[in-house]
Amino acid sequence: MKLLYPTSLKLDVASLEGFGVSLHPYDVKALIPEDLIDAEVLVAWTNSAENLKDAAQRMKNLRWIQSLAAGPNDVLSAGFPSNVTVTTGSGCHDRTVAEHTLGLLLVAARRFDEMRDYQVQGKWAGHLGGPQPDRPKDRFTTLRDANVLIWGYGNIAKTLAPHLTAWGATVRGVARSAGVRDGVQVFAEDSLPELLSRTDALVMILPGSESTKNALNSERLKLLPKHAWVVNVGRGTSIDEDALADALEKGEIGGAALDVFAKEPLPAESRLYKAPNCIVSPHAAGGRPQDAEALIAYNLRRLLAGQELKNVI
Amino acid sequence: MKLLYPTSLKLDVASLEGFGVSLHPYDVKALIPEDLIDAEVLVAWTNSAENLKDAAQRMKNLRWIQSLAAGPNDVLSAGFPSNVTVTTGSGCHDRTVAEHTLGLLLVAARRFDEMRDYQVQGKWAGHLGGPQPDRPKDRFTTLRDANVLIWGYGNIAKTLAPHLTAWGATVRGVARSAGVRDGVQVFAEDSLPELLSRTDALVMILPGSESTKNALNSERLKLLPKHAWVVNVGRGTSIDEDALADALEKGEIGGAALDVFAKEPLPAESRLYKAPNCIVSPHAAGGRPQDAEALIAYNLRRLLAGQELKNVI
Repeated sequence: MKLLYPTSLKLDVASLEGFGVSLHPYDVKALIPEDLIDAEVLVAWTNSAENLKDAAQRMKNLRWIQSLAAGPNDVLSAGFPSNVTVTTGSGCHDRTVAEHTLGLLLVAARRFDEMRDYQVQGKWAGHLGGPQPDRPKDRFTTLRDANVLIWGYGNIAKTLAPHLTAWGATVRGVARSAGVRDGVQVFAEDSLPELLSRTDALVMILPGSESTKNALNSERLKLLPKHAWVVNVGRGTSIDEDALADALEKGEIGGAALDVFAKEPLPAESRLYKAPNCIVSPHAAGGRPQDAEALIAYNLRRLLAGQELKNVI
Repeated sequence: MKLLYPTSLKLDVASLEGFGVSLHPYDVKALIPEDLIDAEVLVAWTNSAENLKDAAQRMKNLRWIQSLAAGPNDVLSAGFPSNVTVTTGSGCHDRTVAEHTLGLLLVAARRFDEMRDYQVQGKWAGHLGGPQPDRPKDRFTTLRDANVLIWGYGNIAKTLAPHLTAWGATVRGVARSAGVRDGVQVFAEDSLPELLSRTDALVMILPGSESTKNALNSERLKLLPKHAWVVNVGRGTSIDEDALADALEKGEIGGAALDVFAKEPLPAESRLYKAPNCIVSPHAAGGRPQDAEALIAYNLRRLLAGQELKNVI
């Protein structure tokens, strides 16, 4: 059995040995070479559309594609036959996305964006420094005593939550099924009206799908307190961007720190670039899979044992 | 006994009752009224120089000043007689300064400053998003596996360190006396050359004094790896700002995120406003004392019991 691994990221290939599988590097931006075309396993990361489309047609022995992306839309749209199992890189991005999310929350609370605007003009943002009120009720200035609501409570949320509670935040979650996860109370979506109304920072980590489209719409934005911030590190389509721009321009919410957008790169004509208290991060939260070897080895062992793989789409 | 408390911050005055001491609010920007001039205790926060100078001359019964500042230079330079005990607000700023420091570290690692520069021009900072190398050795891009050195290992450092290790950083400290504090290895200053050479992020939390002046000088800056960031939330005088600006302009270090400066506000002509990879925060880390009531009550009880106070200068 041949496994093809991408050269588009650094992998500790030695940690994949011992399965009696031959391991071959390949260039994700070129077509698969003739001598590797009979491979049964393809690990994918930042492959070109041409590479995937060609592989879908020519790799007749392919059984399994391990993507390292959390949402491998590229693989799914390449036309692989339905007998090829596709598994995602879910879990490989938890720590990086969680870290970026905390960064966005702190930029929002401490207004590093506004400080930067002053700095580049050679000005001292005196109103943001010196003596300040501690934890005013009508502003989001610190994680301490803040109500943080995480909408989309999967692995990234579970990774992030303990860091927020360690700073004194009260973390609640929203997901399709309610319950207590790692000590955090997670509510079903029908609790959103009550939850949104007492939220200081709303963190959205929803996947992209028809069911999450415009999940945060005009009506729900109006339920947030006037000082609340919205942070989105899930998928841009989960927010009605026009409604969000309206809310920001009218000062109906505290601000928004966004890493994802309905269309990326965010088009130059988007109002979000200039909307007040809006922070644009260029889809930078993830993009660097971690501990991919462990996932590949785990799934490879299960494939060889005839067991169900992890992260199957 | 009369205790005067400032109206310049919100205090839960009821929590100070029960000592048989009468509690009186006062305006820190005006002179002490005649009927309060015989007070024995003064709690100080953002007092005007006139208020303090006048109090030093007219409050003949004063025994103790509880400042809520971590470094109450204003009280010390007001001319109070030497029999007046001055205690600092050390400890009231640990959480806020630690949170701001983490924010500065994440702005540096994730380059939210550079993203902002692109955003205000209506541009997408594509080079900072999308697929990225994970934990490259020659850049500071994440706390995971980063070597963070905290120079000045007091309460703020102790508050900050667990948050950094929780993200996967290796934290070491430097202080006058070596030892292990809360599980973090703290070295004496003679270990600096070896420590600086393997530092990804240097966090400085040194107090302002003659002995810390220009602690980070040209010679020590040269010991840092080329990708290392310097974060300063202690006192601006602990860094030779000219040497730092030189290092930034020549690309000899990765960057600097500074909340304190030798002269504040940072003068418009300072090179630090425009130096590459320099982040200017307007002394915004602290400035909002927390849990001051507990410190005042603790020291008030000790004063009445004739015991030594906490945080005596």
